Amino acid sequence: MAMTGVLRPGHAQLRVLDIEESIAFYTDVLGLKAAGRDAQGRAYFKAWDEHDHASVILRQADHAGLDFFGFKVLDVATLDLLEKGLQAQGVKTERIPAGELMATGERVRFTVPTGHTLELYAHKERVGNGLGLVNPDAWPDDLKGMAVTRMDHCLLYGPDIDGTRSILEKALDFALVERVKLEDGETDLAIWLTTSTKAHDIAFVRHGEPGKLHHLAFKLDTWEQVLRAADIMSKNKVAIDIGPTRHGVTRGLTIYFFDPSGNRLETFCGGYDWYPDMDTIKWTWDEVGKGIFYHARQLNDRFLSVVS
Amino acid sequence: MAMTGVLRPGHAQLRVLDIEESIAFYTDVLGLKAAGRDAQGRAYFKAWDEHDHASVILRQADHAGLDFFGFKVLDVATLDLLEKGLQAQGVKTERIPAGELMATGERVRFTVPTGHTLELYAHKERVGNGLGLVNPDAWPDDLKGMAVTRMDHCLLYGPDIDGTRSILEKALDFALVERVKLEDGETDLAIWLTTSTKAHDIAFVRHGEPGKLHHLAFKLDTWEQVLRAADIMSKNKVAIDIGPTRHGVTRGLTIYFFDPSGNRLETFCGGYDWYPDMDTIKWTWDEVGKGIFYHARQLNDRFLSVVS
Amino acid sequence: MAMTGVLRPGHAQLRVLDIEESIAFYTDVLGLKAAGRDAQGRAYFKAWDEHDHASVILRQADHAGLDFFGFKVLDVATLDLLEKGLQAQGVKTERIPAGELMATGERVRFTVPTGHTLELYAHKERVGNGLGLVNPDAWPDDLKGMAVTRMDHCLLYGPDIDGTRSILEKALDFALVERVKLEDGETDLAIWLTTSTKAHDIAFVRHGEPGKLHHLAFKLDTWEQVLRAADIMSKNKVAIDIGPTRHGVTRGLTIYFFDPSGNRLETFCGGYDWYPDMDTIKWTWDEVGKGIFYHARQLNDRFLSVVS
Amino acid sequence: MAMTGVLRPGHAQLRVLDIEESIAFYTDVLGLKAAGRDAQGRAYFKAWDEHDHASVILRQADHAGLDFFGFKVLDVATLDLLEKGLQAQGVKTERIPAGELMATGERVRFTVPTGHTLELYAHKERVGNGLGLVNPDAWPDDLKGMAVTRMDHCLLYGPDIDGTRSILEKALDFALVERVKLEDGETDLAIWLTTSTKAHDIAFVRHGEPGKLHHLAFKLDTWEQVLRAADIMSKNKVAIDIGPTRHGVTRGLTIYFFDPSGNRLETFCGGYDWYPDMDTIKWTWDEVGKGIFYHARQLNDRFLSVVS
Repeated sequence: MAMTGVLRPGHAQLRVLDIEESIAFYTDVLGLKAAGRDAQGRAYFKAWDEHDHASVILRQADHAGLDFFGFKVLDVATLDLLEKGLQAQGVKTERIPAGELMATGERVRFTVPTGHTLELYAHKERVGNGLGLVNPDAWPDDLKGMAVTRMDHCLLYGPDIDGTRSILEKALDFALVERVKLEDGETDLAIWLTTSTKAHDIAFVRHGEPGKLHHLAFKLDTWEQVLRAADIMSKNKVAIDIGPTRHGVTRGLTIYFFDPSGNRLETFCGGYDWYPDMDTIKWTWDEVGKGIFYHARQLNDRFLSVVS
Repeated sequence: MAMTGVLRPGHAQLRVLDIEESIAFYTDVLGLKAAGRDAQGRAYFKAWDEHDHASVILRQADHAGLDFFGFKVLDVATLDLLEKGLQAQGVKTERIPAGELMATGERVRFTVPTGHTLELYAHKERVGNGLGLVNPDAWPDDLKGMAVTRMDHCLLYGPDIDGTRSILEKALDFALVERVKLEDGETDLAIWLTTSTKAHDIAFVRHGEPGKLHHLAFKLDTWEQVLRAADIMSKNKVAIDIGPTRHGVTRGLTIYFFDPSGNRLETFCGGYDWYPDMDTIKWTWDEVGKGIFYHARQLNDRFLSVVS
Repeated sequence: MAMTGVLRPGHAQLRVLDIEESIAFYTDVLGLKAAGRDAQGRAYFKAWDEHDHASVILRQADHAGLDFFGFKVLDVATLDLLEKGLQAQGVKTERIPAGELMATGERVRFTVPTGHTLELYAHKERVGNGLGLVNPDAWPDDLKGMAVTRMDHCLLYGPDIDGTRSILEKALDFALVERVKLEDGETDLAIWLTTSTKAHDIAFVRHGEPGKLHHLAFKLDTWEQVLRAADIMSKNKVAIDIGPTRHGVTRGLTIYFFDPSGNRLETFCGGYDWYPDMDTIKWTWDEVGKGIFYHARQLNDRFLSVVS
Repeated sequence: MAMTGVLRPGHAQLRVLDIEESIAFYTDVLGLKAAGRDAQGRAYFKAWDEHDHASVILRQADHAGLDFFGFKVLDVATLDLLEKGLQAQGVKTERIPAGELMATGERVRFTVPTGHTLELYAHKERVGNGLGLVNPDAWPDDLKGMAVTRMDHCLLYGPDIDGTRSILEKALDFALVERVKLEDGETDLAIWLTTSTKAHDIAFVRHGEPGKLHHLAFKLDTWEQVLRAADIMSKNKVAIDIGPTRHGVTRGLTIYFFDPSGNRLETFCGGYDWYPDMDTIKWTWDEVGKGIFYHARQLNDRFLSVVS
């Protein structure tokens, strides 16, 4: 099979300050579907066009941010193989037992040099996208809010992005799709990595403090849906960071905004398809503004400094 | 690397009745970029967002149709391995020397039970998409006509689609994404197969005559671009088969139309992303109309009978 | 004031075969808002972005069709003046008392030579579009189904379209925006008339039988909304006549479909703005197909024969 | 005829610092069509879907800004009548002879209390929109750049916006569609006026300095065209002020940007249709941010201070 190894981002566990307020936000405004709560009080959600049990888990805490970000892999044999690959790169791994996350199999957890906790897993209960597998309609009837179609990727901030990249490339076969160079023309300020044909499945920005979340991104189908999402933010007094606009990097069309706890989220559409015979695109320091915000062509301070 | 093996459809060689008229059509109306002519008089074209030398080759002949359809594979080692896999399935393969197609490496050619000639190759000259690899713009300035972004897939008609499917699955690791069943509920009328995360890279319909082309498809980015393509067809008196409309299968948004020789082409956008942990979608005979044309919800005779 | 006289189509009363089934269709599928029922059992509806009480009235009857089509005029003085203008053209008028239609003032009713009952009125209760007049949002939260924004125009079939045109032009200051000529190059097959800056407020096709409705049209904002409407039709097994496609006439983007009683409806977007210094556009008989269905470039029999 | 009096904005004369550079910008980037130059060296342009000779006139000067803004009226009788109406309001009028502007009849010129020069005229040579009046296509083939469809409206800054409003309402029958109130809840900060069914044909913001131009606006058909315009700005290093975004006022979808001389321009789509029986919408001071920029929900300094 042409798609093997690590398939895609599968789940993200976010910290929120008020779980009930957040549940309302993620279901009514973002339009995720509630998928249950566990004994710890964590709340589970899936986007409508995802087939697995849940992709977003919210945990109440006293500060916002990302607990961990997990990738689904092809099967259990792949999970074992990739764990060995991580260990061969000197990465310490931990097994989290099946069921610790609802409807989810055993996970291999590890920490990357940027200070983030990543996970791999092979099983999560398939619940379908609500359309069925026989004569499905094009979309379901019960959509709410922005009605994002899937949890798509995240952008993480931390110090040693080179070390993290090395692990993702060497142990997990991620590929470097785009990069932004610092003024020296050598050092990467930011890197976008893929494990599939998406222009990015995960990305990193060099940053002094480890383990930070810049944003968690959700996919929409069209530029008109991005507009509709922006309208919904306005109607619900959601704090918008920037957008609607285009990224130079990946060409995606985007809005950044904040959940009630201050976690930055993105809804976006577009971006090109990536294949392993493609070359890495480079953005130079003098054009980093255009790379990040293609229309404004300049970074705002918030982009580089506000993380959770 | 998660994407391995067969990467994507890479080239299609079509027969046309009048090569000069066809060159004008494929460049001015479809908006492909001319990529050269060879000593045999064949004309080469690429879509603007493709990076390789050419994806469409036109050959003048006395009847329309598809000479062959080729897939790019990851590398030469993969090419050798896949050829062995084909032979292990009892498929006779032939090596076409590098350079027989302009800017293209050695090809492994074979015939599938539906009577179509397929090819694999590992090398084609990379010419880029015109945007460069440093600080690229979102799209180039010199677009013409419909400005399709890539040659995407084809739908082929022939008798033994089960045999063809078996080879693509077993030797080349294609996966079955959607299928339409005949009245008996058992026999497949049509099958859509992928080698990537696309909802289809190639598809087949059961048909009495072997080796037939139903359509060759080109990708657009948006539903508004599909409308624009339909307008361009009208302005250029291109024969439209059906559309703009939606397919139930893959959810794609589409128009079918004919080139001056009678080869059916498609411009489309949309369609979901496929992952190897997804289940095959089935369309039953009573809903085949909705499966093919989601809005009209009935097949027209042309869809089942007109092939080239 | 630059806009005077007849302002716009204000209401249409349709006959339906089963009022309860129709109420469900017009609210859940078309997405109109219920505005009440009167003592006769008639059901009233408004589109969400209309400000007046109701624009569609359904009356149960044993055959489908249009009872009458009414235009709102600027004020009572205008109503009186226009009635005199009608009488000056030899048109017999009738006054329908205020309140005969819910929330509607006195109406001037008359019959045009194509056999249709038209009305003028100056008052209808203003209920607003749900967004308020202070710091309004861009759209309301409680939209359903296709969520059409307004009842926009109708196309009527009848014999003497020249006579009807003469009355609308001379007595009511309508203007002829587009016309389709028959084979003789002289006779009008179809005419599109405006009373505002819309490309059409009402249209007529020459037809043997008087008083027939071809379609009643509802406006959407975008081509993506037209697609969404087509999807909703499919999901609800609504009979689609044609579309999504473009009209050559007015350039509008459209779908025709049928309500449960067989009344043809249209949802559309687009079309140019008309000003009184613009010339009438003419479609010749050999290009009538392109004029009506810009992409297919041929009429289907249904367009010319199926009316209610 | 329902549309009478003042029909629409017809022409705007802008001052530019370098006429040759500006000609390149207005044709290649904005996509206007060159319509000639006069003996004074002024350059004339029309948008593709306008029918009259020219809507934008550029005059080289040592500072940017608006020389005058002209409205087309129904006919010469209307022109005379409206001039009398202006004089009855105490407005001094001047007749500019036919031919002073290329292809334009006699103009009635007057100054409003905000310090702007406005004009009325009844005749401008009709050249058509390039599609012809018989069997026209939906759009022409030779579009360039953003390909704006028409010069649509302007927003002007000056001190006595009440005085200007009074003249436009009383003498020219403009209507007040939307208004923004200052903190006192009484004084208008900004007013949007229409002479047609557009949500605005001209608008004013209260400002210390008279005769200033905030922006001249050009229409596009869709939100995707607005995105494409933003991309074109980026590709051509055009200074973008804000957008793509939505206005709360009129609901329009917009980008503001600057021509090479510093004149702010807008490309936009959308906005509701206005009828004379609609009520004025009011924006309160605390929601002025949302009124102007619906997504960001706050004004930037540039909006209120940078004018030409």
